[in-house]
Amino acid sequence: MKRSKIKVGIIGANGYAGAEVLWLTANHPHVELTAVTSRAHKGKRVADVFPALPCDLVYTDADDKALANCDIVFVALPQTAGAEIVGRLIDAGVRVIDLSADYRFDDVAVYERTYSVKHPRPDLCDIAVYGLCEQNRDAIRTAKLVANPGCYVTSVLLPMLPLCKAGLATDIIADSKSGVSGAGRKSDEAYGFCALDENFKAYGIFGHRHAPEMSEKLGAPIIFTPHLLPVKRGILSTIYFNTPDPAEAKRVLENAYPDEPFAAYGQELPELSFVAHTNRCIFSARFSDGRGIVVSVLDNLLKGAAGQAVQNMNIMAGLNETAGLPLYAPV
Amino acid sequence: MKRSKIKVGIIGANGYAGAEVLWLTANHPHVELTAVTSRAHKGKRVADVFPALPCDLVYTDADDKALANCDIVFVALPQTAGAEIVGRLIDAGVRVIDLSADYRFDDVAVYERTYSVKHPRPDLCDIAVYGLCEQNRDAIRTAKLVANPGCYVTSVLLPMLPLCKAGLATDIIADSKSGVSGAGRKSDEAYGFCALDENFKAYGIFGHRHAPEMSEKLGAPIIFTPHLLPVKRGILSTIYFNTPDPAEAKRVLENAYPDEPFAAYGQELPELSFVAHTNRCIFSARFSDGRGIVVSVLDNLLKGAAGQAVQNMNIMAGLNETAGLPLYAPV
Amino acid sequence: MKRSKIKVGIIGANGYAGAEVLWLTANHPHVELTAVTSRAHKGKRVADVFPALPCDLVYTDADDKALANCDIVFVALPQTAGAEIVGRLIDAGVRVIDLSADYRFDDVAVYERTYSVKHPRPDLCDIAVYGLCEQNRDAIRTAKLVANPGCYVTSVLLPMLPLCKAGLATDIIADSKSGVSGAGRKSDEAYGFCALDENFKAYGIFGHRHAPEMSEKLGAPIIFTPHLLPVKRGILSTIYFNTPDPAEAKRVLENAYPDEPFAAYGQELPELSFVAHTNRCIFSARFSDGRGIVVSVLDNLLKGAAGQAVQNMNIMAGLNETAGLPLYAPV
Amino acid sequence: MKRSKIKVGIIGANGYAGAEVLWLTANHPHVELTAVTSRAHKGKRVADVFPALPCDLVYTDADDKALANCDIVFVALPQTAGAEIVGRLIDAGVRVIDLSADYRFDDVAVYERTYSVKHPRPDLCDIAVYGLCEQNRDAIRTAKLVANPGCYVTSVLLPMLPLCKAGLATDIIADSKSGVSGAGRKSDEAYGFCALDENFKAYGIFGHRHAPEMSEKLGAPIIFTPHLLPVKRGILSTIYFNTPDPAEAKRVLENAYPDEPFAAYGQELPELSFVAHTNRCIFSARFSDGRGIVVSVLDNLLKGAAGQAVQNMNIMAGLNETAGLPLYAPV
Repeated sequence: MKRSKIKVGIIGANGYAGAEVLWLTANHPHVELTAVTSRAHKGKRVADVFPALPCDLVYTDADDKALANCDIVFVALPQTAGAEIVGRLIDAGVRVIDLSADYRFDDVAVYERTYSVKHPRPDLCDIAVYGLCEQNRDAIRTAKLVANPGCYVTSVLLPMLPLCKAGLATDIIADSKSGVSGAGRKSDEAYGFCALDENFKAYGIFGHRHAPEMSEKLGAPIIFTPHLLPVKRGILSTIYFNTPDPAEAKRVLENAYPDEPFAAYGQELPELSFVAHTNRCIFSARFSDGRGIVVSVLDNLLKGAAGQAVQNMNIMAGLNETAGLPLYAPV
Repeated sequence: MKRSKIKVGIIGANGYAGAEVLWLTANHPHVELTAVTSRAHKGKRVADVFPALPCDLVYTDADDKALANCDIVFVALPQTAGAEIVGRLIDAGVRVIDLSADYRFDDVAVYERTYSVKHPRPDLCDIAVYGLCEQNRDAIRTAKLVANPGCYVTSVLLPMLPLCKAGLATDIIADSKSGVSGAGRKSDEAYGFCALDENFKAYGIFGHRHAPEMSEKLGAPIIFTPHLLPVKRGILSTIYFNTPDPAEAKRVLENAYPDEPFAAYGQELPELSFVAHTNRCIFSARFSDGRGIVVSVLDNLLKGAAGQAVQNMNIMAGLNETAGLPLYAPV
Repeated sequence: MKRSKIKVGIIGANGYAGAEVLWLTANHPHVELTAVTSRAHKGKRVADVFPALPCDLVYTDADDKALANCDIVFVALPQTAGAEIVGRLIDAGVRVIDLSADYRFDDVAVYERTYSVKHPRPDLCDIAVYGLCEQNRDAIRTAKLVANPGCYVTSVLLPMLPLCKAGLATDIIADSKSGVSGAGRKSDEAYGFCALDENFKAYGIFGHRHAPEMSEKLGAPIIFTPHLLPVKRGILSTIYFNTPDPAEAKRVLENAYPDEPFAAYGQELPELSFVAHTNRCIFSARFSDGRGIVVSVLDNLLKGAAGQAVQNMNIMAGLNETAGLPLYAPV
Repeated sequence: MKRSKIKVGIIGANGYAGAEVLWLTANHPHVELTAVTSRAHKGKRVADVFPALPCDLVYTDADDKALANCDIVFVALPQTAGAEIVGRLIDAGVRVIDLSADYRFDDVAVYERTYSVKHPRPDLCDIAVYGLCEQNRDAIRTAKLVANPGCYVTSVLLPMLPLCKAGLATDIIADSKSGVSGAGRKSDEAYGFCALDENFKAYGIFGHRHAPEMSEKLGAPIIFTPHLLPVKRGILSTIYFNTPDPAEAKRVLENAYPDEPFAAYGQELPELSFVAHTNRCIFSARFSDGRGIVVSVLDNLLKGAAGQAVQNMNIMAGLNETAGLPLYAPV
């Protein structure tokens, strides 16, 4: 039986994450791209912006009526900019995968404090499902609104959630390092080649917006320090914690994702190159004297954003979860 | 009708080009990987070397009997090292795609002078087809032995062959710049990060082995200067020539590959990032006062090596020419 | 006898070249920094912008009266922006080293055509000395106004001027590759890390502003193609030409700068790393069948801009020509 | 009064640290380079290896008699390889600055356990002075043997020693990231450009040799995790600790090095680019809820190795401590 394709829209397809969703879905065997919006490119043909992309659409804007005919719409707008658009789509009966932080929090007050805004649609926070695929698969299947997790957050939650649920980790510190695409598309000297090549820095100490998202999902406080790596893609998190039972903690980590294509424990300490251009998160752990250290890596634009979003789409649409998701990672 | 898969072997699967063939074929919808050899990894499971790769094989060596049962074998050994192995496979009735230079030359004497060796199987040079897909597609379809073109060479031939055939280019100079993976897998301080990052150099002036290959295929002399870029993947060739008819030269270039998925003229000057991680070669041209300048880009491991090799396999096996070949090139 | 220090001003000290002049002069044993201007930093202490810099000044603007008390003022403003300021300083009896193109041309008409402006002070073009130190040292010594050469131009002129003067080079093509700092300080996505890392491109084909400067100084036409390298500093020019006497051409190049600290022929093909963070231009040559290829390298911010400017200052002030100029180039 | 120059030798001048000492001392106003040894370059002229370096010497080997005539000899050999050579020089009355770990430990047993060797000259460990200039200046002045601190160690000790001495830091974790030159000159695919560019990784978790050196000097246990950055030079350490008095800890850090040219507290979070190509260590701190985070940066080849070694030489010889040490850090 030949299955019909699902109709997909993308709002905000010019940002790095949105463009990555565009590439993935345009090459996806079970997707019919139906509407692609971008204020920067409105009126241009997608094929003129990306000549290699097999797509006949013209960029429109978020008012595009075709969005209402989609089965699923990806919303890849900056934090708070898309919250109302998401609401209108949901109201119109369209399922949405939101790549922003707007619907990630169970506690709206934490969201409002973290992003210094009033949430326009707190009513939808209750129906939103947190799209960490390997942990929430059942809820995602039938979700109307999936809140796609943050990139740093995914690198921390996949290894640490199983430990925290088992009461095996306290005093957690996540020292995370991200590639430059994590900051989004920027016209800013601070993100220029001359500013960043051969450079490295910490930022947002004790104040980054991903820390409250981690804490809420882990159910535990966490110290989180992000750093900016001179690479285009990838996140590596070095996670320190105390554990009452190192042997059991190791066992839990090794058995956390036995059959998952996109999450895996590895004996070897993982490097960015193990996962660049793939949708995988790989982690390993070392223990000594009641202290544990987990090293976790993923591609911030794939498993950390667009890849996980498409994985969520596959789950929502009842497709093979790996459909259209690259596992390509040579040199 | 469900078509049966073609049985594929890879000899020399640890080099960059061989490993790239491995990734492409392991993810190819119509390939059944049957034998994978590597002296470095003999006895190891492929999945232990590349955990993300969907492949159950164990690396063997070039004596592996399973190679004789393959429909097509890729040979990715260093120049001259695999010439006899290729011969034995052909003798056994296996079709071969050779990624080395051993069978690329029409004139064996030029090969022997260029590589300072005696060719062990000059008899096969006559049946070998030069695997520049867009130019030799018909001969490739039925070829027993395909000699996959050099990476630098492909970047020059795709734009310049149509011009030379039309008598529209003389006094050709190709100033080419390649990423580091073009040098192959190396344990050599000269290819170390500290030696190459923030560095750039020319090499092989008036003496690089790709110049005779270009000259023979173009039917014209060429000055070729390779340079080493501090990037992992990609070749950009800036090609200077005199032309008696710039307008006609431009027309020929624009119309050289109208319907090709993997070769295209673009109005915009192409950059490495337009083609990295894709199998495409894109070129553009500018003219002034009887002088022409072509800028041509490709990914040296894909269209310049493994990608073109798989494209050749698709042609030889009667598959869709784009099957299994990535068109993925965001950030 | 203890010599008194020369009083120096810098106009436009926030651009890459201006900031490099600032660093060099602040650490120069015979310079007393007297005025430093920057619109971006006006009112800030230099030491707050560059904590490591031994300088007590506050950034002012180009109206700063202290400039009139300087012995020598460096003007590092964008093309055409500083031409009148230079004029006023000269009128006030201050010697000027201008890092822009405004006073580089003998033929004002070529300048006006190249930069699409009317020159505000054509009268000064006659007294301006072209500051290619190794070629014009005598005139520089007593110059009131030195026009500091372009970065690409210096890399081409130092090897090619001796050849052209001797009638040993025709049909010249310069294929040049520059680090990103050559574009100046930019807030532009096109110069962002994600746009340029792992990327490479040609630009300005048949139309770059440095070509007319090269042609005028060489007294010969030249085809010049600039490219953008993913490195912060450095220019490598690969220069093709015909020569009637290769042996003599080689001899001329080898003997062009026998005793110069900052210009030298080397037997080995030079790499960017040979000259990064130094004021040296190094070049080598290869010949075959009446064709010559020169490879020339320099640091675009030092010998290509600020370093040559300080070298000019040393000559103008009768100092040791190497004073305050780094020769530091390890890893 | 014109002071006479000090006679200096360098053993192991081909490694990155040794070559950096060579550049610094060859350009040092008060040094007469007397002997330079390298097994790799023995018999070659220094000027042939580094054409830009003002040095007439020929590389010899460690038996060179001229070493005995030096006032001070730098020994830059791998750990344990130079311990006996250091001993013979000291026995001959030559003062030594050893860049290896051999004489850094107060407790020889810790050294022997950490490096899995028997110390050949434990007698000298008592007279060796740990060359952390800003902390041990008085002892260094008259030292016969200075053990130059490790690169990672210096980045941690300069901020943390004042805190630990004041009892203001416990439960210390140092998450450190180093440029590739920290691994030394290597012919190893693992340090190749293709292996490291766009990559990042942790290594040596719970087992790196710098942890015991940090612990001994701090007088406190420390968890230390090194990482490998895709940059050539620089270390950034993110240091986590508990403190009973954050306000006092901040005050101690701000006042730790008020008049030091090469160590400073800065309000802004420091980046690698603040210190690359300089001899400075800069650090800043943030506090929240009894937790402190220090970010500390230095250039691993300068303040982390050769620069601090020359600073030690300046102290030992009674010179201005900044003589010959670059403060050059633009783009």
